[in-house]
Amino acid sequence: MKEKLTIVKVGGAVVEDEAQLAQLLKDFSAIEGNKVLVHGGGRKATKMAERLGIETQMVGGRRITDAAMLEVVTMVYGGLVNKHVVACLQAEGIKAIGLTGADADVIRSVKRPLKNGVDYGYVGDVTDVDHQTLSSLIAQGLVPVMAPLTHDGHGTMLNTNADTIASETAKALAKVYDVTLVFAFEKPGVLANPDDDTTVIPVITRADFQRYQADGTISGGMLPKIENALAAVDAGVSRVVITLATAIDGNSGTVIKEDR
Amino acid sequence: MKEKLTIVKVGGAVVEDEAQLAQLLKDFSAIEGNKVLVHGGGRKATKMAERLGIETQMVGGRRITDAAMLEVVTMVYGGLVNKHVVACLQAEGIKAIGLTGADADVIRSVKRPLKNGVDYGYVGDVTDVDHQTLSSLIAQGLVPVMAPLTHDGHGTMLNTNADTIASETAKALAKVYDVTLVFAFEKPGVLANPDDDTTVIPVITRADFQRYQADGTISGGMLPKIENALAAVDAGVSRVVITLATAIDGNSGTVIKEDR
Repeated sequence: MKEKLTIVKVGGAVVEDEAQLAQLLKDFSAIEGNKVLVHGGGRKATKMAERLGIETQMVGGRRITDAAMLEVVTMVYGGLVNKHVVACLQAEGIKAIGLTGADADVIRSVKRPLKNGVDYGYVGDVTDVDHQTLSSLIAQGLVPVMAPLTHDGHGTMLNTNADTIASETAKALAKVYDVTLVFAFEKPGVLANPDDDTTVIPVITRADFQRYQADGTISGGMLPKIENALAAVDAGVSRVVITLATAIDGNSGTVIKEDR
Repeated sequence: MKEKLTIVKVGGAVVEDEAQLAQLLKDFSAIEGNKVLVHGGGRKATKMAERLGIETQMVGGRRITDAAMLEVVTMVYGGLVNKHVVACLQAEGIKAIGLTGADADVIRSVKRPLKNGVDYGYVGDVTDVDHQTLSSLIAQGLVPVMAPLTHDGHGTMLNTNADTIASETAKALAKVYDVTLVFAFEKPGVLANPDDDTTVIPVITRADFQRYQADGTISGGMLPKIENALAAVDAGVSRVVITLATAIDGNSGTVIKEDR
């Protein structure tokens, strides 16, 4: 039987709020057994870019990462946010180790080709997660804290979405562990009515998702999140939960599963 | 018999020059056996602080690290410089892993107390290097790339001089390995005449050092570097070499040793 491993992905909004982040890190520290934290950084990079006079260009909700912006995200995600999270986890007695995809070569990616004529710049699409190196770090009692950055193997860092880092890492580690993947964010789960936090949908299968997507119940930014979750389940991840950042024990929120 | 391990410390001036850095990383990659790279960052942090409108305060050649400057050094040393070096080493086929002292809790420090009434701010004096965790990473084929940052164990990162990181790491790893510590910089070694690069002093013992210091041959920034080197030798480091960044094979430069 495989050992259990929990991967928690925490988004930019929680990372930006010091009190929420502190609570999340306490809750994360309390999770028993093997674990991995994946963090975003979101507006912290945008704000730093602003201070440096670098314009943030977005196309369809996605950041265009030119050379100047790549420096900013490398500094902010790989340095400022990652080291703050690692130092805080150490204070909780967790032997955290910060990793970008370049560190120990754990996640390689390729620079995204033009999409519909849009050049996203230094954005990496994941090609390979080294589950052997990751699990050997975990086996020595370390807790990886992963920043949303990868590398191309030729000396260039690339900006990669934190949800993607989380689901690709979950898929790779599912070869070795019984993986639960928790997406922690500012809502209590996937909502049937986005304006009513009491309308959490407890379980979503692929069939449910297609139905909810067709009738408009689920739309916008939640679509790629659930696509990612379903892809993880297809690839052998035992359980994917979308939940509030203050409820990462996995006992509430929306569970994404393949079938009933 | 202990396995050999080489620690190379490369300073800010080399890190700032892309061509010199690329050559140094190629040479470092060619070193056989276990190895560790320690990098500074120097003026990169000063320049970034300038761009952010943060004033750099220096007292006696040392940077005062207030809260704003701590964010800058954490971003620049831990993110920008460290990840660039790691990604470049990966391109050379080296399985580099970037580490601050907080990562895997490898280096703890305490915030420096007031010295002669000067508050250096968020500067850490090293208290403990975890040679077991470091050697277990090295044993699995990883090459630590260490940024000049430590942590206090209570959630705060601290700015620590890169020469100190290198010598403290060398001392700790000397318990496990036959360590050579190489300080790579912009001069071919310790010079008898600072204006003449052909006057490299080939060997300096503690007795030599006291004599050179007394007669003024060695002065300024070279004094703490040699003090660091002698302390490393006293603590069991086999060999300390101070040499040009383009000659890190350890066959030239100044060798610091305890006695003849």
